[in-house]
Amino acid sequence: MKQIAIDMDEVIAHPNQRFIDWYERDTGVRVEEAELFRTGKKFYQYLGEEFAGSIRGYLFEKGFFKDLPIMEDSVEVIKWLDQHYEIFFVTSAMEFKNSMEDKYDWLQKHFPFISWKQYVFCGRKDMISTDYLIDDHVSNLTTFKGQGILYHAPHNLDNTKYPRVKNWKEVRTFFEGELREEGIV
Amino acid sequence: MKQIAIDMDEVIAHPNQRFIDWYERDTGVRVEEAELFRTGKKFYQYLGEEFAGSIRGYLFEKGFFKDLPIMEDSVEVIKWLDQHYEIFFVTSAMEFKNSMEDKYDWLQKHFPFISWKQYVFCGRKDMISTDYLIDDHVSNLTTFKGQGILYHAPHNLDNTKYPRVKNWKEVRTFFEGELREEGIV
Repeated sequence: MKQIAIDMDEVIAHPNQRFIDWYERDTGVRVEEAELFRTGKKFYQYLGEEFAGSIRGYLFEKGFFKDLPIMEDSVEVIKWLDQHYEIFFVTSAMEFKNSMEDKYDWLQKHFPFISWKQYVFCGRKDMISTDYLIDDHVSNLTTFKGQGILYHAPHNLDNTKYPRVKNWKEVRTFFEGELREEGIV
Repeated sequence: MKQIAIDMDEVIAHPNQRFIDWYERDTGVRVEEAELFRTGKKFYQYLGEEFAGSIRGYLFEKGFFKDLPIMEDSVEVIKWLDQHYEIFFVTSAMEFKNSMEDKYDWLQKHFPFISWKQYVFCGRKDMISTDYLIDDHVSNLTTFKGQGILYHAPHNLDNTKYPRVKNWKEVRTFFEGELREEGIV
């Protein structure tokens, strides 16, 4: 069975939504995610140099990763993928020590059908060897030896090197193609 | 630069010592580690079926992994290895959610010269692709595609398939041989 590594942030979980909510809580100003997509920026880049540090600091606060919104259709599609592939959740948790337990709980809650044996919390991802990696960061795909798949996000709009998936329905379509090509379905 | 994945428990950290200490705290009975080596058993196997569950339960208690004793010479040898290889600490932390922050702090304390980017907390290790893996569990070496190195422990005495290292001085000797063979030193 082939293996798929799936990133968490901006792929199955939605920290951008939390950035937007906390920023509104602290300043009263609501930034729409469409605005990030229009400008091709991460939230803390969008606000400009003078805010970048303090907004990025949200990531280090206890609770930032707790109960993050989940990407639409991700549960259903991963349930389907799980029948044909071995799934690993591979997330860069190490920069944010506070995130680890929250991420663990989040996975247990939303994906109880995937064992903790299939979680990988890491710093870098270049030593992960699976057949596929679905990730929103081009830098992770560049060092990956298997087939990289780019999950559409404001900060990766200009990349054309990897197959791009805009939502989980498109992930399913991509892998239906792969399975057909291999004669599995 | 070649990459070495290094396991934590019973390789750089010493949970067996904690098992022994907590068991003595709870029962007044001191089991020497030499006894585990003599019988070739994990601590909770050594005590017999009727104790196995409750003793293994220590692993799930908050604090079990906090300030674990460190294996002799591991800091000095890993400092030396770090000059010739990329080091990753790869540990099965996922079964014990409570262990993650303690393991993180422990690595930061004892190995401040290795970046958090080089930590991997996982369930299984078969998707880790480095050149070497130093581990005390034969099952992890069996599924590993690079060169496995078995770190001597009571529960692996009968294995002869992998090069065995009995302490960190022997790890250094092993890699001095590898570097010589490659003409690097």
